[in-house]
Formats: sequence, structure tokens, C-alpha cells
Amino acid sequence: MRIDLNSDLGEGFGRWELGDDEALLDVVTSANVACGFHAGDPGVMRRTCEAAAARGVSVGAHTGYRDLAGFGRRFVDVPPGELTDDVLYQLGALRQFAETAGTRVGYIKPHGALYNAIVHHEDQARAVVRAVLDFDPELPVLGLPGSAWLRLADEAGLPVVHEVFADRAYTPEGTLVSRRSPGAVLHDPAEVAERCVRMAAEGEIVALDGTVVPVRAESICVHGDSPGAVRMAVAVRAALDEAGVTVAPFAEPGGAAPGNGASGASGPVAG
Amino acid sequence: MRIDLNSDLGEGFGRWELGDDEALLDVVTSANVACGFHAGDPGVMRRTCEAAAARGVSVGAHTGYRDLAGFGRRFVDVPPGELTDDVLYQLGALRQFAETAGTRVGYIKPHGALYNAIVHHEDQARAVVRAVLDFDPELPVLGLPGSAWLRLADEAGLPVVHEVFADRAYTPEGTLVSRRSPGAVLHDPAEVAERCVRMAAEGEIVALDGTVVPVRAESICVHGDSPGAVRMAVAVRAALDEAGVTVAPFAEPGGAAPGNGASGASGPVAG
Amino acid sequence: MRIDLNSDLGEGFGRWELGDDEALLDVVTSANVACGFHAGDPGVMRRTCEAAAARGVSVGAHTGYRDLAGFGRRFVDVPPGELTDDVLYQLGALRQFAETAGTRVGYIKPHGALYNAIVHHEDQARAVVRAVLDFDPELPVLGLPGSAWLRLADEAGLPVVHEVFADRAYTPEGTLVSRRSPGAVLHDPAEVAERCVRMAAEGEIVALDGTVVPVRAESICVHGDSPGAVRMAVAVRAALDEAGVTVAPFAEPGGAAPGNGASGASGPVAG
Amino acid sequence: MRIDLNSDLGEGFGRWELGDDEALLDVVTSANVACGFHAGDPGVMRRTCEAAAARGVSVGAHTGYRDLAGFGRRFVDVPPGELTDDVLYQLGALRQFAETAGTRVGYIKPHGALYNAIVHHEDQARAVVRAVLDFDPELPVLGLPGSAWLRLADEAGLPVVHEVFADRAYTPEGTLVSRRSPGAVLHDPAEVAERCVRMAAEGEIVALDGTVVPVRAESICVHGDSPGAVRMAVAVRAALDEAGVTVAPFAEPGGAAPGNGASGASGPVAG
Repeated sequence: MRIDLNSDLGEGFGRWELGDDEALLDVVTSANVACGFHAGDPGVMRRTCEAAAARGVSVGAHTGYRDLAGFGRRFVDVPPGELTDDVLYQLGALRQFAETAGTRVGYIKPHGALYNAIVHHEDQARAVVRAVLDFDPELPVLGLPGSAWLRLADEAGLPVVHEVFADRAYTPEGTLVSRRSPGAVLHDPAEVAERCVRMAAEGEIVALDGTVVPVRAESICVHGDSPGAVRMAVAVRAALDEAGVTVAPFAEPGGAAPGNGASGASGPVAG
Repeated sequence: MRIDLNSDLGEGFGRWELGDDEALLDVVTSANVACGFHAGDPGVMRRTCEAAAARGVSVGAHTGYRDLAGFGRRFVDVPPGELTDDVLYQLGALRQFAETAGTRVGYIKPHGALYNAIVHHEDQARAVVRAVLDFDPELPVLGLPGSAWLRLADEAGLPVVHEVFADRAYTPEGTLVSRRSPGAVLHDPAEVAERCVRMAAEGEIVALDGTVVPVRAESICVHGDSPGAVRMAVAVRAALDEAGVTVAPFAEPGGAAPGNGASGASGPVAG
Repeated sequence: MRIDLNSDLGEGFGRWELGDDEALLDVVTSANVACGFHAGDPGVMRRTCEAAAARGVSVGAHTGYRDLAGFGRRFVDVPPGELTDDVLYQLGALRQFAETAGTRVGYIKPHGALYNAIVHHEDQARAVVRAVLDFDPELPVLGLPGSAWLRLADEAGLPVVHEVFADRAYTPEGTLVSRRSPGAVLHDPAEVAERCVRMAAEGEIVALDGTVVPVRAESICVHGDSPGAVRMAVAVRAALDEAGVTVAPFAEPGGAAPGNGASGASGPVAG
Repeated sequence: MRIDLNSDLGEGFGRWELGDDEALLDVVTSANVACGFHAGDPGVMRRTCEAAAARGVSVGAHTGYRDLAGFGRRFVDVPPGELTDDVLYQLGALRQFAETAGTRVGYIKPHGALYNAIVHHEDQARAVVRAVLDFDPELPVLGLPGSAWLRLADEAGLPVVHEVFADRAYTPEGTLVSRRSPGAVLHDPAEVAERCVRMAAEGEIVALDGTVVPVRAESICVHGDSPGAVRMAVAVRAALDEAGVTVAPFAEPGGAAPGNGASGASGPVAG
């Protein structure tokens, strides 16, 4: 019984702050750190890496489209070659701050519209995989089970890590209920915490229609961009600890290889 | 008799091109590669690093202010802490493309208004030195003899490399004649080429008033942003070759330490 | 027999120049002026408006996605409300420079990927129409015959102006041959000039398969971003002049309403 | 007894919010609206103009350096010609949103480092004045008494409006105590409110050393970027209302000329 908790961090830019990074860093074990293209300036990156390193939280590259105005939430039809270079640039920049902080880039998890695009967009998914191979052919990649992104990464020999979302409803097929459908997002911290324990401890999730769905995930994504989100993340962490689940990063912050065999027989969530 | 020739390269951005990089790379031995803040996008950086690596040209980080609209030519009063992080970000990003191209970042030479600022601006000079120390405490720094930048870098134990400008007039004190003064910039390729040979082979330069000034420089800066500039660079290189001067990078592209003892008893140009 | 010639102008940014605006302004009658989001900085906008005004060339707003790195050539999935505001911002900024130069914004022609998107993307097309209505409900809109953009603009009561492309091949249905097909782009200035005269004087065009297609367009788009493009534009203009076609802007630069009834019974090119 | 209250508003950008604009708009009579260069995207500009118009709050152009990463708080050595164009671009863009919201740009107040620079930097001050003249030679300019900015604007025939800062200490000479000195910023809402009443009603202020200094200002600047700042602004407004001071914009939002003779015999605060 072991699980990772990941969250988006370091999403300020210049004068603007976002989320309560300090609070989140006491809860999560993996920090998806913005790399300057959709959020995160060099100073934020340095401080976030330092704060993560100080707590033994693993640093991940939260790479996004070059779109500050849209916070990386708008699909951009970047040609694959350019996308590879944009991602590589962000990886290189983050690596610097991670190493200066005494840690390393432990994984990559694309952000926002890029995350969503590479669920299905083969060319962009392949472009991101190529950037990872250029950067470090042993870097774990974190993403949505069943996505083109994880499939292509796996085919390229990259360690693959699956995530579920703490506050999202699932279909009987084990996929996410669309945000536009009623009930897609859960708001009760207690309910969410209980679901997370069941995911981590028993490998199953109750779908929107009551079906119990087997789920395989090495990480749970929690949000932190509102006071309510932080409270929910705290509740999830407390419940996992209480249930005796080991909450630990899948990628060792200190530099070791991912220890949970994530790259093994990884299939979509609902096996 | 050995000298390095350096030039600014990779200064396009997106749709916009600048200078004739291919022509310049056949002439120079060190390429100051823009890192995305004043010019240079990730694709340009990749291609420039690859083209430099293919020719054995050393890659240097041409770090600048975050100012695309001003091409890094406008002083920005960046607080030192932010400047350190901005420079470190650029260094990390360039390192990635250099390594992916099979080479490395061999040195740093700040660009434009930042180059000019840190001749005298102690706080900004110190901020850039700090970034270099975070990046690689053995990275050679290239700059203007007599500048705060080189002095502080030297005090910090960084290898220091001095440069002269091929097409600029000098005062009897060995400093640059202000661009606003008549005769500050030389335009005759033959004259410039002859001066460069004298600098490299005899360690002296004829000042604007005819005085012969001793000069110590391990690199000569040539420009390449116009057809005339490329012709002048070609003329300089041909003259140096013909005079039997070894034209070679001060920082080995392959990864070796700088081979010319640049960090030794380095003082201002006019000793 | 009257036609307008339009071309993209003012596409530099900061240090970077693009195209030969001076040469083009002697040839065209309508200047599509970049507004700062994909190209064009405030100084470029001022100078382009002044140069256009001095020659009696009409100024059009060449509005694009906020994407300097991609030159506005990458589709961005901007939500409609944001797109309306982005376009309105650009229109307002250009209006200022046009008026300061003693002219006015005579029309709008979206740029690049936005131009292509709103051929079919109803939501984005409607968003741009809404911006135009906010700006000036009598502003002529220039675009591709048969596009959602022109249809929705027409329905909203905006004057609609159709354009053909001087150097592009057409299908027997009067639509553009895809750039990926062989023969899609014509390169012979004499041939292109002859086709333009036929379009303007006889309202017909010879399709790729030899079919003669009726065409209705009030403007011909010529390019200017390479020396060859400028030569072609010059050839087109000379041929039109020689054939006795009146080459004149569809929108009077001085402020008068569009004089060619462009908004009348406008249908797709191939009626 | 009449005074204006101004505050910086619309300082979000994309995903990032800043300050409590709704709360501030119920307190102030003039809104300094960011124009996209240091903060404020087109959507924020539209919504801020609409909210200001709905409350009869005057809209001012809060123009800044092109520096999102630094929030316009870092001096940028922009050449005067470029600065004029940058300011004109921002004015034109804001005018569009103001007019679409049914109001107008009632005044200009430069932001942050530009505000500070043009207290002494004659070339940049003149450049901003030039932009205002291009935009509207009758536009009121708001700024620091004794600044080059107000002096040059006055010489150019622009209406000049002086401001004092609610929460700042003053010297016996009527200038601001440097932020680096102890006691420079006041934190007690009651004390600040009382000082503002005295400024507005009696035209005097108690300097840091106890001296009573005559002060002439048509506007008081209050901040709103923290909960404490909003509480202070509310206290100031309540105290002014209670003391029978008419709190009203100096520039009529509906389009009328400034009504308080601001451009008359205006000298520095401490006459």
C-alpha cells in the first residue's frame, strides 16, 4: 500500500501569486513545477525547487504551451518539431534550478491544454516523448491512463506513471466524467479522502453509476489553487496516513531511479 | 600566436531571422548563442548548437535581459536576485540544447545592455557572477577588459577571458572610443583585418591618436548582422590564417577545460 | 474595371525586419498592418501608418492570435469572449496610430491561423465579428469568399469584401488548391500578372484543370516577404495598370465609406 | 471642499488576479486601469471599464513599461521615440474598451517605475507628454507635484492634476519620505483617514517632524492590493464623506472637461 500525491506548484509569475505552495508542499510528495511558459518565472522556479528539496518532495517538470495569457489552458497547434524544442527548453531550465537546489528533475507531467491534447493528439504526444528522450531516456512520465502520451512513452522505453484525480468522478469504464456533466467534480473533502484511500489501498474506485471499477495508479493528483482545495488535499493526506498507506514519491528526489516499477506492465486504469 | 574569434549567433526569433549564421560559423571559433530572453527561440537554439557542434565551434551563453521588444539593448533595472535567476534560467536552457547537440556550454558572454551595464554596475555584475557560480564554477567568462564583470568573476575564481572588438577604435588608454565620437567604428575590411593580425600576433593596437597601445586579449569579437559585417569577418579570418596565427576557441567545444590559461594573470587590456 | 491590391505590411518586431514595406506600399492600395499580437510593435505600426497615409494607401487591421513566437500561424483555441477582446484591443491600438498619421482604420483582415480558422470555426468567426461591431459597425471586413467569417459578418450588417490570391491555384469549384498539392503556388510573375488582369477585367480565373471559373473579388492579395514576392507584386500592378484596370482601395483612406458596394449581393467566389 | 480618490485597478493578467477591484470601485472616483504592458489583459480591461462606467468612476490610463515579468516596477531605459509609441499604443487600446463600455479615457497616470522615472527623467517625461498630445491634447495628466512630468505637461498645455498619497509620510518640504526611511509608510487606517480629511478640507499635511505643510492636491491615491489596503481605502472614504468633503472625479466620466481648474496655477504641493 503505497501512493504518491502530486500537485501543481510554482504557478505564480512576477507580481502574481497563485495557490498556497507552502501548505501544499507539506501534503504532497511530488511537485509539478511550472517552467516559465504558461506560469512560473525563474525566481518562482528557484524558490519552489528549494522548498520541495527541503521537504524531500520530488520535483517534476510541468511543461506547457508558450501561453502566459492563457495560462497554458488553450490548445495551441504547435508543429511537433517546435513543441519538442519548447519542452526541451523548459526541461533544461528546470533542471538547472532543481540541481542548484540540490535535487533533480524526477519526472515530467505536461500541463493544462498540452496534457489534454496529448491524450489523443499523436503528433504532439510523440513530440513531447522525443523531448523527454533528448533530456533523459530514463525520466518517468506522469499522465492519464489510456492516453497516447503514456502509450508512446512506454513504447519508447520511458518509465510510465499513472495518475488518478482525487476530486473527479469516473465512468464505469474507468475514464474521467467530462467536466461538463453534472457530478463531474466532487466537493466534499471527507468523501474525496475516503475515495483516495480506497484507490490506494484496494485499487478500486466507485464510478458515477455505483459500479466498482478496478483502478491502477501510482499517483493521485490533488489541487491547491484555492483555500478549499488546500483543505481537501490536507484531508486526503491525513486519511491516507491514518489508513496506513505509505505516501511517498514515485521518483526519489535524491536522484535514485523510480522505485515502484512504474514502467512495468502498465496499462490503462481500468485493466 | 593564438586567438579566438567570437560572434553573436542564433539571434532570430520565430519567423524572424537575423544575420547569416552559416557564413559566420565558418569563420568564428566561438558562437555567442542567444538564449531566448532577448532573441533566440528553442528551435533556433537547437539548430545553432547543432551547427556549431558540427564545425567544432565553441558554444557560449549569450544571456540578456528579458526584453524581446528591445532586443536586450535597453538597460533594465532588474534587482540582483531576479537577474541571477534570469541568467541561470537561460544557462540551463542553453545547456540542454548544447548537450543534445553533443557539445557543451563553453563560456558565458552577456549581451547588449547587460554587457554594457556590468562594466560599471557592481550589483548586476555580481548577480551574473552568482548565476555562473551556481551553474558551473569553472565556466569561463568573456567580457570587456577592465569591467566590474571580469574583476568580480576573477575574484570569484572564474576563468576570465578578455576580448577586443575588431571594428572599434581605441583610446590611448586602451578603452573603446565612444560610439558617439567620430571614427569610433571602422569600416574598411582590409584595415580591420590588419589591426586584428597586429592584436593577435604582436599584442598591440594603434589608438585613434596614433599611439601604440599594448593589448592583451584572448578573443576578438566580429559582427555578422549585415552582409558587410560578414565580409569583414571573413577578411579578418583570412588575414589571421595567412599571418600564421592559430585561430582556435579558448574553450574546447568537446568539454575540456579552457586551454589558454585565460584565468591567470589577467588584467585590463592596457596593462 | 476596378480592383484593390492588398498585402501584409508592418510585420517587423523590435530589432527584426520583415519584407520590403517601402517597395510594397508603392504597389498596393490596401495595407494589412500587424497590430502587435503576432508581429508589429508600436513603432512599426506608427511608421507603417504614416507611410501608408503618405501614399493614399488604405490601412487595414491585420489582427492575429497573441503568438509572437509562432507569428500567428498556429491555431490557438482561444475562447470566443477572450478572442473578441484580443481583437478589439488590437483594433483600438491600430486606430490610434492610423489617426495620428492622419488616416483611419479602413477595414479588418485577420491574419494567418486566425484567418484560416474562421473560414470554418463558427465560434471564433462570430467572436471576431463581435469585436468589429464593438469597434465600428460600418467597418468593411476582408476575407475568403465562402468563409464563415464573411457570411457571419454579412449577416451582422458589416460591409463584406472578397479577395483572391494572386499566386495561388484554384480548383474548378473556385476554392484554393491546398498548399500541400503540387502546383498550388504559382511562381512565374508574368503568368501571375496575366491571371490577375483576367480576374479583375473579366471576372474569371483558369482553374488547375483548365476550367474557366467565374470569380468575384474586390481585392487581390499579393505577398511581399521576399525579393521574389516584391517583383511579382510589381509585375501584377504594372499589368493591371497597362490593361486599364483602375487599381484603387476599396475603403477610402481619407474616411469615406467603401465605394464599391462590396457588401451587396456578396456570395462565394464561384457564384 | 472637493477631492478625488484614485487607485490602481485592473491589474490581473490571464489566470492571475490582483486586488479587490469590486471593493475599490465602491470607494474611489478614479480608476487607474492597467493597459496590458505591465498588467491587464484585454478581458480585464473590458470588465474594469464596464465596472467603472456602471458606478460613474472615471477611467484613467495606467500606462507602464512593457514588462509583465517585472510588473512595470523596473526602470527600462526605453529610447524616447519608442516610449511615446508604447504609451500611445496603450492609450489607444484602453480608449477602445472605455468607449465600448460607454465611458472614455478621462486622464493618464503612468505606472510604477515609469511614474518614478518621469519625476526626474526629462527625456522619458517628454516622451510621455508627446504621446498624450498625439492622443488628446486636452487629456488631464495625473502625477506627483514637482515632477518633470507635470511641469512638461503643463508647458505643453495639458491639464495637470496633482496627487498626494494617503498612506505616505511627507518631509517638511512637502516631498515624500523615502520608502527606505523609518516611518515612510503609515499603517493605521484611522490616522490615515484623518490625514486625508485634513489634506482635502484644510489643504495641509503634518510632516514627519511635526511641521504643518501646505498641500495642494486634487486627488488622493489609495491602494487596494491587499485586504488591509482595502480597509484603509474604505476608512478614508468614510471619513471624507463624514467630514462633508465632496468626493468626486476630477475628470467627468461622461466626457465633460475636468471641472476643477486643475490646469491653472498649478505648482508643486508645497507652494
